[in-house]
Amino acid sequence: MKTDDFLKSSCGWLKGTGQYGDIVISSRIRLARNLKDFHFEARLNQAKAKELIKRLEEAVHSCNYLKKALFVRFSELSELDKQLLLERHLISREHSLGKGERAVCISENEIVSIMVVEEDHLRMQVLQSGFSLSEAWRILSQIDSELERFLEYAFDSQLGYLTACPTNVGTGLRASTMLHLPALIMTKEINKILQALAKLNLASRGFYGEGTQASGNFFQFSNQITLGHSEEDIIDNLERVLRQVIEHEKEARLMLFKKRRGMLEDQIWRALGTLKSARIISSQETISLLSLVRLGLDLGLVAGLDVQKLNDLFLLIQPAHLQKLFGKELSAAERDSKRAELIRSHLKSIVLV
Amino acid sequence: MKTDDFLKSSCGWLKGTGQYGDIVISSRIRLARNLKDFHFEARLNQAKAKELIKRLEEAVHSCNYLKKALFVRFSELSELDKQLLLERHLISREHSLGKGERAVCISENEIVSIMVVEEDHLRMQVLQSGFSLSEAWRILSQIDSELERFLEYAFDSQLGYLTACPTNVGTGLRASTMLHLPALIMTKEINKILQALAKLNLASRGFYGEGTQASGNFFQFSNQITLGHSEEDIIDNLERVLRQVIEHEKEARLMLFKKRRGMLEDQIWRALGTLKSARIISSQETISLLSLVRLGLDLGLVAGLDVQKLNDLFLLIQPAHLQKLFGKELSAAERDSKRAELIRSHLKSIVLV
Repeated sequence: MKTDDFLKSSCGWLKGTGQYGDIVISSRIRLARNLKDFHFEARLNQAKAKELIKRLEEAVHSCNYLKKALFVRFSELSELDKQLLLERHLISREHSLGKGERAVCISENEIVSIMVVEEDHLRMQVLQSGFSLSEAWRILSQIDSELERFLEYAFDSQLGYLTACPTNVGTGLRASTMLHLPALIMTKEINKILQALAKLNLASRGFYGEGTQASGNFFQFSNQITLGHSEEDIIDNLERVLRQVIEHEKEARLMLFKKRRGMLEDQIWRALGTLKSARIISSQETISLLSLVRLGLDLGLVAGLDVQKLNDLFLLIQPAHLQKLFGKELSAAERDSKRAELIRSHLKSIVLV
Repeated sequence: MKTDDFLKSSCGWLKGTGQYGDIVISSRIRLARNLKDFHFEARLNQAKAKELIKRLEEAVHSCNYLKKALFVRFSELSELDKQLLLERHLISREHSLGKGERAVCISENEIVSIMVVEEDHLRMQVLQSGFSLSEAWRILSQIDSELERFLEYAFDSQLGYLTACPTNVGTGLRASTMLHLPALIMTKEINKILQALAKLNLASRGFYGEGTQASGNFFQFSNQITLGHSEEDIIDNLERVLRQVIEHEKEARLMLFKKRRGMLEDQIWRALGTLKSARIISSQETISLLSLVRLGLDLGLVAGLDVQKLNDLFLLIQPAHLQKLFGKELSAAERDSKRAELIRSHLKSIVLV
């Protein structure tokens, strides 16, 4: 598989467009599905897994939305390829580490991906730029219906869709949105908000998904309950709550812009100065600095760079991406140096004034 | 007095030239002298002080070396003017704060300055760029001899020159050298060296003179003993000791360049990036960062800037200089912002690559 092609084009969900595009990076819906005629993944033998993957491949390619999609078995992927897909949010860590027969289906623009034989037989996701949970759901629901014409899902009329883990039973749906909340962090309002969201049963995570900490002021919020509510209700509820978080961030930005502009400009330009000059830089530091530059672009304090180009950097600075880009295996120290090199070249168009 | 003229030209002792110009910023010799016919400063009344200043003014202008020198009474100076002279190392803090009749004589290129009615009647100094104590002494000794033709110094055949404070009795000479020792700090060898110098009765101070701490890796070393040795012995001794310090710094730089070049380049370029981008910056942070850039220039890791232009910044970023440059009184917060503005404009010619 030519995973290198991924490096050449930007992925569709990091365009920086869509509703509240200055605060909402992306919206994601995923569905967990299992096929009735096969054991759950934990008890699936390799022969059956092979058969299942074959059946899914056929179904996927009969599906209008995925006719041109890439369908690839893990046996065709190197470890680096898998890490690249993980870094691009196209497969999960568990999926990438899993042994045996597995596969993934990815649409051209990386908007749709379907993990095959993850915790469930199918983990389908649609990623959209901006605050677009409804649009993501519209697309995913269409794909789900199309697939259901070719596949018989494990479904119970009382419980809904059956899944390997009881927390996913019902709709099998998880909706999540990645927000960029630098102003709420600067004004120290963030903890109050995180506590409120936890009480509403929303989970929060970092930029790089499950198990990662919030870094660079990025937060992924998602529903935890999948049972007892319709898909639309779950999405509406998440949207309603997050709209308030977004409004708070907007207000905090306005306040900072009006009352602490000097401090804000200083932080943003220093971040740019460091990114444009460092020779050695960790991904953690990079993300924090990019977050500030992104805020500078959003507030019109910095010019000369396209938001998508900046967003691309969040992916490109990761280990597998760096190794693919520079065409060789790199130690952690070498990556810190190559990362700095990549960033400097990427931000050349911004002039320090 | 037009102290503003000082801002237009660079001062002669910050040229960055001379022996060991990459490590030794400047060399300074000062002599303390008093006139036989006048009480020491503590018991000098205002009428006598006026007379003393007049007599010195005549003597100074009869002196070949100082024919074109500026001679100015403190009554003609604003508080800001005095602060400016202090920041340019032309008068001392005590002199600038002193009440009553005082004056200062400054040569065109700021190489020579004579404080009149400081702790002693005369405190004459010659500042030279680089490691040039002997040259500074040659000039100062010539001026001293010329002045002695017109003035009768308080002198005792046994003790030598008499001074207000016993620590200056004898030669009345203090020799000092400002060294830039970033590599000895990075390699943590500096403390060992400072301890050794203290045992040899050498005093160490910061960039901004007596009572200031070493900052930005700059150290001023000077003799403490003035009695019982000839001027030449004092200077030779200081030169001999400091030559060893310089050699240690050279070795440390070479070692860092060879073995930790990546870290070194990262620190130096980041310093430049911050200086070229910050919107708010303290003088303390500026000096630390300028020190790194200076090291980068010395090691050939950074190009596009003249050493003298960089050295000028050490003076220009100080409070009185900023207020003179921007033509108005500035609060501390305003200075931090104007300082950043000045630095950015000053370093425009360096391109981040």
